[in-house]
Amino acid sequence: MRIPEGAIVVMLTPFDNKGKINESQVRKLVSFLIEKNVDGIFPVSSSGEYVHMDMAERKFLIDIVIDEARSRVDIIPGTGATCYHQSIELANYAKDKGCSAIVLHGPYFFKNTDEVVEGHIRKVAESVDIPIFVYNIPFFANEVTPQIVERLAYLSNIVGIKDSSGNMVNVMNLLEMTKKVKPDFKVLVGVEEIMLPALLMGARGCMTATAGILPEFMVGIWNAYLNGNINLAYNLQFAILPLIRKMKSFNFPQGFKEALSVRGIEMGPPKMNYSREALLKLADLRERLRLEIAGLLERYFSQALINCRVQEKDSKFNYPQFGSKLLEKKYPDCTLCGNCASRDSVNKEMSSSGAQKEIIERIVENTLRRIIDEIR
Amino acid sequence: MRIPEGAIVVMLTPFDNKGKINESQVRKLVSFLIEKNVDGIFPVSSSGEYVHMDMAERKFLIDIVIDEARSRVDIIPGTGATCYHQSIELANYAKDKGCSAIVLHGPYFFKNTDEVVEGHIRKVAESVDIPIFVYNIPFFANEVTPQIVERLAYLSNIVGIKDSSGNMVNVMNLLEMTKKVKPDFKVLVGVEEIMLPALLMGARGCMTATAGILPEFMVGIWNAYLNGNINLAYNLQFAILPLIRKMKSFNFPQGFKEALSVRGIEMGPPKMNYSREALLKLADLRERLRLEIAGLLERYFSQALINCRVQEKDSKFNYPQFGSKLLEKKYPDCTLCGNCASRDSVNKEMSSSGAQKEIIERIVENTLRRIIDEIR
Amino acid sequence: MRIPEGAIVVMLTPFDNKGKINESQVRKLVSFLIEKNVDGIFPVSSSGEYVHMDMAERKFLIDIVIDEARSRVDIIPGTGATCYHQSIELANYAKDKGCSAIVLHGPYFFKNTDEVVEGHIRKVAESVDIPIFVYNIPFFANEVTPQIVERLAYLSNIVGIKDSSGNMVNVMNLLEMTKKVKPDFKVLVGVEEIMLPALLMGARGCMTATAGILPEFMVGIWNAYLNGNINLAYNLQFAILPLIRKMKSFNFPQGFKEALSVRGIEMGPPKMNYSREALLKLADLRERLRLEIAGLLERYFSQALINCRVQEKDSKFNYPQFGSKLLEKKYPDCTLCGNCASRDSVNKEMSSSGAQKEIIERIVENTLRRIIDEIR
Amino acid sequence: MRIPEGAIVVMLTPFDNKGKINESQVRKLVSFLIEKNVDGIFPVSSSGEYVHMDMAERKFLIDIVIDEARSRVDIIPGTGATCYHQSIELANYAKDKGCSAIVLHGPYFFKNTDEVVEGHIRKVAESVDIPIFVYNIPFFANEVTPQIVERLAYLSNIVGIKDSSGNMVNVMNLLEMTKKVKPDFKVLVGVEEIMLPALLMGARGCMTATAGILPEFMVGIWNAYLNGNINLAYNLQFAILPLIRKMKSFNFPQGFKEALSVRGIEMGPPKMNYSREALLKLADLRERLRLEIAGLLERYFSQALINCRVQEKDSKFNYPQFGSKLLEKKYPDCTLCGNCASRDSVNKEMSSSGAQKEIIERIVENTLRRIIDEIR
Repeated sequence: MRIPEGAIVVMLTPFDNKGKINESQVRKLVSFLIEKNVDGIFPVSSSGEYVHMDMAERKFLIDIVIDEARSRVDIIPGTGATCYHQSIELANYAKDKGCSAIVLHGPYFFKNTDEVVEGHIRKVAESVDIPIFVYNIPFFANEVTPQIVERLAYLSNIVGIKDSSGNMVNVMNLLEMTKKVKPDFKVLVGVEEIMLPALLMGARGCMTATAGILPEFMVGIWNAYLNGNINLAYNLQFAILPLIRKMKSFNFPQGFKEALSVRGIEMGPPKMNYSREALLKLADLRERLRLEIAGLLERYFSQALINCRVQEKDSKFNYPQFGSKLLEKKYPDCTLCGNCASRDSVNKEMSSSGAQKEIIERIVENTLRRIIDEIR
Repeated sequence: MRIPEGAIVVMLTPFDNKGKINESQVRKLVSFLIEKNVDGIFPVSSSGEYVHMDMAERKFLIDIVIDEARSRVDIIPGTGATCYHQSIELANYAKDKGCSAIVLHGPYFFKNTDEVVEGHIRKVAESVDIPIFVYNIPFFANEVTPQIVERLAYLSNIVGIKDSSGNMVNVMNLLEMTKKVKPDFKVLVGVEEIMLPALLMGARGCMTATAGILPEFMVGIWNAYLNGNINLAYNLQFAILPLIRKMKSFNFPQGFKEALSVRGIEMGPPKMNYSREALLKLADLRERLRLEIAGLLERYFSQALINCRVQEKDSKFNYPQFGSKLLEKKYPDCTLCGNCASRDSVNKEMSSSGAQKEIIERIVENTLRRIIDEIR
Repeated sequence: MRIPEGAIVVMLTPFDNKGKINESQVRKLVSFLIEKNVDGIFPVSSSGEYVHMDMAERKFLIDIVIDEARSRVDIIPGTGATCYHQSIELANYAKDKGCSAIVLHGPYFFKNTDEVVEGHIRKVAESVDIPIFVYNIPFFANEVTPQIVERLAYLSNIVGIKDSSGNMVNVMNLLEMTKKVKPDFKVLVGVEEIMLPALLMGARGCMTATAGILPEFMVGIWNAYLNGNINLAYNLQFAILPLIRKMKSFNFPQGFKEALSVRGIEMGPPKMNYSREALLKLADLRERLRLEIAGLLERYFSQALINCRVQEKDSKFNYPQFGSKLLEKKYPDCTLCGNCASRDSVNKEMSSSGAQKEIIERIVENTLRRIIDEIR
Repeated sequence: MRIPEGAIVVMLTPFDNKGKINESQVRKLVSFLIEKNVDGIFPVSSSGEYVHMDMAERKFLIDIVIDEARSRVDIIPGTGATCYHQSIELANYAKDKGCSAIVLHGPYFFKNTDEVVEGHIRKVAESVDIPIFVYNIPFFANEVTPQIVERLAYLSNIVGIKDSSGNMVNVMNLLEMTKKVKPDFKVLVGVEEIMLPALLMGARGCMTATAGILPEFMVGIWNAYLNGNINLAYNLQFAILPLIRKMKSFNFPQGFKEALSVRGIEMGPPKMNYSREALLKLADLRERLRLEIAGLLERYFSQALINCRVQEKDSKFNYPQFGSKLLEKKYPDCTLCGNCASRDSVNKEMSSSGAQKEIIERIVENTLRRIIDEIR
């Protein structure tokens, strides 16, 4: 049994104007992600707002994703719930539909004791016949501590953990504690900002929303890591941090949904009732995300480069000082495939990258002023 | 339009062995509560584990309660959800079925900003035509601050607040801030331990699970307060504190469910997966709850007194020193209806109440030892 | 041994321009408070920023307060610390100087276990010979739970608890649990907004900063309560809530210090480094506090009334509906001594106070009152 | 100006039986650390319980450390306080005594706003003439967010940040945000478990208590990283995780103090008042720490190897699968200096290392059983 790993997408859910799942956009998104070579898709996710869907909708979403994926990629749906009955029902459905594994976080709403959190996951694991990634997301659901994970790892179908605490002490302890129980236990990181440090410590990939918004980057980090090109992985990892801060600056997960809409997926109206003022801020944010995403893709994956797979190997282990002159110089010399036809034009773009920030800032400012004028 | 007030029951939900709503036990519970003269019933509540039920089950539960109640008591179901669509659907259903009002807490799961929490409730209020009690339960759902409540109180169908924070500063500010907006805005307290102090400050009742477990006491406090018999209300309020601590000592709301089972309602197996060890603790707790509830009812509402409505008026405002000799003496002289036939036997019970604690403790100890022996 | 109770002042500390204790202003403050008939003074308090003072300064502050008080009022200094050595040293000093008792919160800075918190207080209690009020202030120091307090109450010199959690469930449980251990154990409330409900449940007073800023009100509530005039106590309690919200709207305890400066005590420059913008906000806040305090004193304790002790007794237990016509009408008819000669001059003062802001606020108030009247 | 970096020790403080600083043990500790080639010493630290010391003691501790160090290593004392006056006084003292820099966390005790936290650090920075490491330790003091750090980095003497949040998202954002402001801004990690991932992302070292307890390992990680031997750094990093979990299993920082006592430093009695039961647990913990530390040193730094400086360079970037057979095999081939005389004996030790864990576990078990027997 091959357990999924790599750059796995926490899939956001496109809705239609009535708030129902938008099948055609879901299909478009799945196709987009597969084209971008992601390693797996995780529908019915927290960031995908599964809590707003009932059981029938959750099953329907799995149906669409499975159907569109046509076995080209692992599908690993979420089965989170407030009690185990619902999780078991959905896990069995996922198994029947041919999903590769499921993701299961601790129960939510009530504040349960550690013992009950463990009992919840244990009950599901013992009731279903499908590999399970335990999921620690203390912001939304009862925390699943490394100690609980260690004990659960003794169950044969508990195959990994998605840790979204952001706490690297957790990740380190999980790597150390679970390896003793099960050598091939997979620690996946659920926070996009720390994919590379987690990989370097032994994690086997990520499950993040950003993997669906900027698959080029998250797949890029994973492949660069696999190829030993840590230099490239490092550049890609740090390049996306400002974008992530922007996406997180709005009421979660709306900032992420806006960013995905920039990639061409119609996400539908927000699920929450935002004030007129908040919606204006959101429009502004979308514009800023558009510019930032365009800039990132242009810089790191320009048209000519976009279909290149990362191939280069950098045998020297020589971390660049981030943001240093060295890095700026180094970039055009050593990144990406290196045998690209449009190399020179890329280099030209690069050489002017000093001015890029100012240009973007000017565009943003102008756009903002125009919008404000329109509002008046 | 009469808005519910008084001793309103946060109704726990009896389930059958398959985890489905147990209709016959729900009917039994509703009848029991109406017999005990509660002022309202709040089904589809957090303590009633509504989060484990889907929309169809929530509607079915409303159906049963409405049908069994036969307009003898106000029914005020909960409509909590992660987004407004579900809340609106259930609120409209409640309206159609003849419910008096609904209860609505902030959205849960995601950590939304104050603005979004307010927008959520505002959207529901503007979309439905039924009185709404806003519900602040920061332990489970996004906090609804007094400032948000103040702004929402301007909407015509926002008629009150259930505050379950336990924070009396909140209750005081809510009383002060909402009175300026809407003189008849009702502040209800959602925490059983503080019903009396809240009433004395201007709250108009409670919505608590304990009102369904010990309706005699919560109805008793409310009626004593209405009749100006603060002395009696005081005794009743303090008498139940140790029981509440016991119910809260187990993973919520299982301790409350055990207590209700002691009153004769079959609650079904727990919704969470407890270990064998935890289930033994639970059995022990149930035994202790049984003794404590029996003792409380015997002391304050013995067979002969049980149907008496509180009538006495104590014109002297003279708070007893809780637990003092004075209180012990005072109790048989002034509480309850006073013209009860079985007075003497009650007094006799009372006079031996000094020894009561030891007797109960001995019974508990013996029970425990027996159980431990059985386990071995 | 008489244990302090009633309206006890958590004393803020006046500093000079160099950040040292301002002896003359401390003396002025102590005199002011004694004149206002407060029941005790608690120097070296958290709100009094004792954490900014070293041991010598803390002792010096006790010296001044004791000297100025000349045994006219109980002095109960704080002895909080990160470890017991310091607490013991200061407690012994307090004992030697003739203090009536000390206040002791849990250790702070480190997050200690419940066991260590209990051990800390136990060690101090067993090492000193002076009555101790345990102090629960979970916002600043390790929480002292009701269960810990219950166990500590068995020590002979643990005589009471100051609970500043705001959590009324705590207050109720403390009243119930400690009474069984020690009938005269004193529960004092540390949060100004809930003095009256706590008193009505059996608390024996408050320790609050507001008792030093508006001693008329806090002493007034206590005396009204003692005299059975719950009506008056109720009005006084609710009257101060908006002021408290204002004082809390700025970085603690600076809002409280500004309010005390309005009463004529020079508090010195803030201990924290506020930006120019923040200082402007602070100046604005001080102006608003000045108006609000003036209005409160004028309305409830006008010049002619200011020396009147609360005398009225209301034998009817008849809570007013806060904010109702009844209350508004009742006020001039029944509060305080009622035979005030300078009534008209007070009214004249009102109309002639010239600040622009006050005028605006009056207009707003009047408009609001008119609207409220119309709604009625 | 050279700014400290590398493996910097958060120095624990040895006390004597009267609770005062134990000068001779401090000197012994400083010598020990310098012999072990640490890159800096941070006295007056939180883990060193500076909060229990008054200003004179803090200065005295700096005196001893500076005197004993004789400029052989950077001394970077902490200057944390509740308000800026104390921080400035101590920072100036540190400057006069020749310290290389100071460490400054946010104010503690009161919950200040972000603006006030920033103002506090800004005031100190503008008042003193010594390099400052900002220190984020949200468990004990007001959080210093990456946004605050970014703004502070514009001040010339704010040279770095010690982040002890454990949150790697913070570390990543700090690296990215501060580099734009000041290319040589130093991000140091305050949590021992994540030194290597932080280094690999661009951090310039650590400030941790473990660097003083197991300097061999923390210096080892830093040197291995500098030499490009990530393999070795990786092994050292993961090897210490179980020990750290043990040290953290007792009320902080007592577990760390016990571990340091195992290295031969007399730490004195605990500063907190532990129950007899807790002290027995502590004795047990010390025994377990002794075995674990002995095992770690034996395995990775046996007698013959202990003075070897890490020299090897591993040109292949080839992360081992932690805990895999490969790793076990790889270890004796490639770690440490490689030209060591006692190589074979080391290898022999290593080859039996599979059984080592069982042996230690057996010893521990036997010891525990003996202690338990003694207690009975």
